Amino acid sequence: MPVVVQNIARADPAVIEGLAAAGVATVHEAQGRKGCMASHMRPIWAGAQVAGSAITISAPPGDNWMLHVAIEQLRAGDILVLAPTSPCNNGYFGDLLATSAMARGCRGLVIEAGVRDIRDLTKMGFPVWSKAVSAQGTVKETLGDVNLPIVCAGQVVNPGDIIVADDDGVCVVARDEAATVLAAANKRLAAEEAKRARLAAGELGLDIYGMRGRLAEKGLKYV
Amino acid sequence: MPVVVQNIARADPAVIEGLAAAGVATVHEAQGRKGCMASHMRPIWAGAQVAGSAITISAPPGDNWMLHVAIEQLRAGDILVLAPTSPCNNGYFGDLLATSAMARGCRGLVIEAGVRDIRDLTKMGFPVWSKAVSAQGTVKETLGDVNLPIVCAGQVVNPGDIIVADDDGVCVVARDEAATVLAAANKRLAAEEAKRARLAAGELGLDIYGMRGRLAEKGLKYV
Amino acid sequence: MPVVVQNIARADPAVIEGLAAAGVATVHEAQGRKGCMASHMRPIWAGAQVAGSAITISAPPGDNWMLHVAIEQLRAGDILVLAPTSPCNNGYFGDLLATSAMARGCRGLVIEAGVRDIRDLTKMGFPVWSKAVSAQGTVKETLGDVNLPIVCAGQVVNPGDIIVADDDGVCVVARDEAATVLAAANKRLAAEEAKRARLAAGELGLDIYGMRGRLAEKGLKYV
Amino acid sequence: MPVVVQNIARADPAVIEGLAAAGVATVHEAQGRKGCMASHMRPIWAGAQVAGSAITISAPPGDNWMLHVAIEQLRAGDILVLAPTSPCNNGYFGDLLATSAMARGCRGLVIEAGVRDIRDLTKMGFPVWSKAVSAQGTVKETLGDVNLPIVCAGQVVNPGDIIVADDDGVCVVARDEAATVLAAANKRLAAEEAKRARLAAGELGLDIYGMRGRLAEKGLKYV
Amino acid sequence: MPVVVQNIARADPAVIEGLAAAGVATVHEAQGRKGCMASHMRPIWAGAQVAGSAITISAPPGDNWMLHVAIEQLRAGDILVLAPTSPCNNGYFGDLLATSAMARGCRGLVIEAGVRDIRDLTKMGFPVWSKAVSAQGTVKETLGDVNLPIVCAGQVVNPGDIIVADDDGVCVVARDEAATVLAAANKRLAAEEAKRARLAAGELGLDIYGMRGRLAEKGLKYV
Amino acid sequence: MPVVVQNIARADPAVIEGLAAAGVATVHEAQGRKGCMASHMRPIWAGAQVAGSAITISAPPGDNWMLHVAIEQLRAGDILVLAPTSPCNNGYFGDLLATSAMARGCRGLVIEAGVRDIRDLTKMGFPVWSKAVSAQGTVKETLGDVNLPIVCAGQVVNPGDIIVADDDGVCVVARDEAATVLAAANKRLAAEEAKRARLAAGELGLDIYGMRGRLAEKGLKYV
Repeated sequence: MPVVVQNIARADPAVIEGLAAAGVATVHEAQGRKGCMASHMRPIWAGAQVAGSAITISAPPGDNWMLHVAIEQLRAGDILVLAPTSPCNNGYFGDLLATSAMARGCRGLVIEAGVRDIRDLTKMGFPVWSKAVSAQGTVKETLGDVNLPIVCAGQVVNPGDIIVADDDGVCVVARDEAATVLAAANKRLAAEEAKRARLAAGELGLDIYGMRGRLAEKGLKYV
Repeated sequence: MPVVVQNIARADPAVIEGLAAAGVATVHEAQGRKGCMASHMRPIWAGAQVAGSAITISAPPGDNWMLHVAIEQLRAGDILVLAPTSPCNNGYFGDLLATSAMARGCRGLVIEAGVRDIRDLTKMGFPVWSKAVSAQGTVKETLGDVNLPIVCAGQVVNPGDIIVADDDGVCVVARDEAATVLAAANKRLAAEEAKRARLAAGELGLDIYGMRGRLAEKGLKYV
Repeated sequence: MPVVVQNIARADPAVIEGLAAAGVATVHEAQGRKGCMASHMRPIWAGAQVAGSAITISAPPGDNWMLHVAIEQLRAGDILVLAPTSPCNNGYFGDLLATSAMARGCRGLVIEAGVRDIRDLTKMGFPVWSKAVSAQGTVKETLGDVNLPIVCAGQVVNPGDIIVADDDGVCVVARDEAATVLAAANKRLAAEEAKRARLAAGELGLDIYGMRGRLAEKGLKYV
Repeated sequence: MPVVVQNIARADPAVIEGLAAAGVATVHEAQGRKGCMASHMRPIWAGAQVAGSAITISAPPGDNWMLHVAIEQLRAGDILVLAPTSPCNNGYFGDLLATSAMARGCRGLVIEAGVRDIRDLTKMGFPVWSKAVSAQGTVKETLGDVNLPIVCAGQVVNPGDIIVADDDGVCVVARDEAATVLAAANKRLAAEEAKRARLAAGELGLDIYGMRGRLAEKGLKYV
Repeated sequence: MPVVVQNIARADPAVIEGLAAAGVATVHEAQGRKGCMASHMRPIWAGAQVAGSAITISAPPGDNWMLHVAIEQLRAGDILVLAPTSPCNNGYFGDLLATSAMARGCRGLVIEAGVRDIRDLTKMGFPVWSKAVSAQGTVKETLGDVNLPIVCAGQVVNPGDIIVADDDGVCVVARDEAATVLAAANKRLAAEEAKRARLAAGELGLDIYGMRGRLAEKGLKYV
Repeated sequence: MPVVVQNIARADPAVIEGLAAAGVATVHEAQGRKGCMASHMRPIWAGAQVAGSAITISAPPGDNWMLHVAIEQLRAGDILVLAPTSPCNNGYFGDLLATSAMARGCRGLVIEAGVRDIRDLTKMGFPVWSKAVSAQGTVKETLGDVNLPIVCAGQVVNPGDIIVADDDGVCVVARDEAATVLAAANKRLAAEEAKRARLAAGELGLDIYGMRGRLAEKGLKYV
């Protein structure tokens, strides 16, 4: 029953690049406020902002065997996404796996479990978003799946979906919605630019967004 | 019933500045070991040390409308303090709201919920202490209150109370106790200076504080 | 009943230095995947990598008296390890205690509770691994024990055991196993070096470790 | 500085009885959706539904001395409410203290910490709402306060406020709002009775509350 | 964009009944160890064992409007399944909604949020599996979706999937796998019956399952 | 390296029986306030009160193989105690294993992980104290140890130590201290009996324990 799906569809690299530039918060809003993984998914170092195609991994607790299998499926621009089949903090991934993944063009790892060799990964510039940092080791005894749909930190991830990740966390964009979402994100960014200038000049959001009438209607009292 | 209190009393700016310089741990001790918010309130970037007058916000889960309302109430030197009416991690606040708040002289945000646009806020030097980092968006549908007393991370905050915040977390000082607390804090800092020199020279706290007698009395055995 | 054990055995300083250089993940694997403290033990600043002999402290919740007692027992190269007798986040330790500990050659603190004065400790270069950052103060009313065996963050720590700590967390090595563990760690590091080069060159772990046969045997299907 | 306030005002016993009968959810709604303690406050046995005047206790972590002090302040119909000064799970209260409290007419205990002797308390019919069950013992070394305002599980409790507690948790009603809240609660109960009959007969809330128009206006699509 | 899908496919009632009889643990194993919701989903009263077709609800934090909408979509034998769009403990559901749902043949509620009126729901025999018990009220301001796929407590739930729930928690069975899973579950139950008798007679699992050889091979030593 | 220790020493059955009768809170106090497992260890059904000799199990996350091995080591009056090598909620144990364990005279299970088949275990009267209830299944691939010392829920458990468990949780008594602890527990129970009567008659703890002087000395003010 355990399966590795080898040839998955990926989104247009230019779209992926655009989503990376827009960042998590903008992309999340642009696609109708969906796709954010749970807030316990934190970067191991600050400042990374990436997007890539998801190679999905379902792995048993405390067993990192399928990471080795998944790395063979990586193409340049991909991001590994691992969800354990039950909650687990073990350190599934460290500097050797990162070396291997980087050699194949991998842009990062999203893992709802633990990661280790933090100092090395930071030096290598390999970004990871994880639920925990832990040196606790794993075994290689039980199979899982590569490139089947998974649920990671509360979000469905299909293989080939676009993962956008930065200091705000991780957001998933469905592959077939990527271009539309990018367009909406760019529109949003442009609109924000104008607003930012007005806000910086001291104008109030209450006025820019015309909120005063509706606040009064709802019954807000100033005393 | 939702209310915005417009003119709140604030403490003497010189006192507020003094409390900022003393920092959270010293202020907390100086006022009799009270006022510390829960330890899940963490800074989004390291190194900020501020104090300011609290503009308090009570907001529904997942609704950041009242932040827009509160920003109008800001005066230079204020700090926004938001408590949701039930536990929530959503990202209520990002770079646009920060731009607006900074334009009005706001010194920071304390929020028992989520915040986003971490990278921008860090670049802008706008400090935030929050329970979570999350890009999950909010709506603007339900009213709350501005400048009523709230409970934030286990502490009562009255509008105009002094918020002291640094890498150790957040401490609240009642407005009418601020001057007394500052005096006690400064006394404490002076006393610590002398002790620090003796400790650095290798003298033991057991001797400096004269603890040996009481330890023996309580029954401590050396073997 | 409360006791301070004064003369504890320590491991060979050269072995301790070797373990520090190997780091937490390698040491943990080298001793058969044991000894890792729970992943909630996090460094207050990034980049420290130390090892030292454990001075163990059992302290009541909210009472840091025994830290003063323990500091007298420190010798150069030691690490303080404190476990509260019930879960507690209070800030047991700050810059004054750190000044005193450093004056006696202490290399760091491991505490399953809170710590404060983060900014000062960072400037001083004193490393701490803790469960929380909190300015909440403590009292000095109730005795505990120094240099009896404790359980800290899920691991037994005997006085004189070697504590290895870095950005991945904290690992405990039994004193009488230290030399053996170091030998195994060094062997492991050497082996990893060769593998790292091959992985960096694009070779797959599946091939280097000869995993393909066993994966097929277990029933992994490629589709 | 530690203080025991001896003579506190209490609400009208008939009002308190009415609030007990209304229960937590109704009272919470009737007072404008406020006053609910955090949902980690759970009853140790199911089925109790009580209301009483709060005797408030602020106690250090792991120290139950002030419970003995507070019991002297109890009058028939009171409820003990304890908040530790920092998070703590120790078992502050057991069957002996319950025996003493019951002898003085106490109706229950609300404690944001631990409780023990669960089986005995259940047999005695003494209700407790707590954050934890734990046999971990406490000391009697450090003072706290009785009958000063506290924050317990996210809510301000003033001495003499009315505590309403049942299987849904705990709600606080300000003493001077008690009569008004009771009136609103009773009105609400009456209104619910009529709705319950219509809903039981199969009528839809969508129709009873006239929601269809507003749902359509907001843009809800049926497909 | 918010949508209500009105006519969803449901599984064969006889299959659903069979899955209810098999229970969560057996069904989970029978379908290849998948489908279990996170262990924080707990029943509000012990002893219920049900299965039904999922009516799925995606709702904003603190807003229960879509529950009213979903109830209209219920048919006899259905189970309501609600996931908030961000973590929330509010009490979305109480006795009035339960009255309405029961009037339409609803078999229970699965909600990764809070529920209230526990005592009434228990008396009514309406089973709920939830993340929290909380009286904290909700508003009716923001739309969500009914009968779109959701992620609830770590599992994807499609409308019409079969929800199996008992004291062990909640398991999801894909609608088109339901018959196959039931067959496997029944086979498993039959096999367990025989084993149970042998185990009760004192025979060891080591012998019944023939584990001794493989244990020795893996290197287990008896000393 | 994985090991099963076959012949462990056990305490006197009469002493074990006495400790069961005394219960967790009394035993914990009688041995100097130590030995309590963390408060997340909860009984799956209320009312059990047992003591027995520990058969200890160290098992990998998500792998219950060693439970089968451990059951062979059980003698009448033993209690199984399992700690996973990293945090795990999987359901390691259910009704078949319970049937087998009961057939060998096992008195219960203490497991810092998950358990399933709650309803069956309750009917069988087999008591379990666990960290979670979960139907999530396990594999049988990786070895662990039986009857080596473990750390379970914060406490060291040596094989043959006495486990005392009731509705308050779980306490560990070292085998060679068992008789002394029982004597102290019985003395404590006798002393409590007298105090209970006085407290029930309305006498205050303040007077019975003579606390008034020390409270005044410490500075408690009555206002």
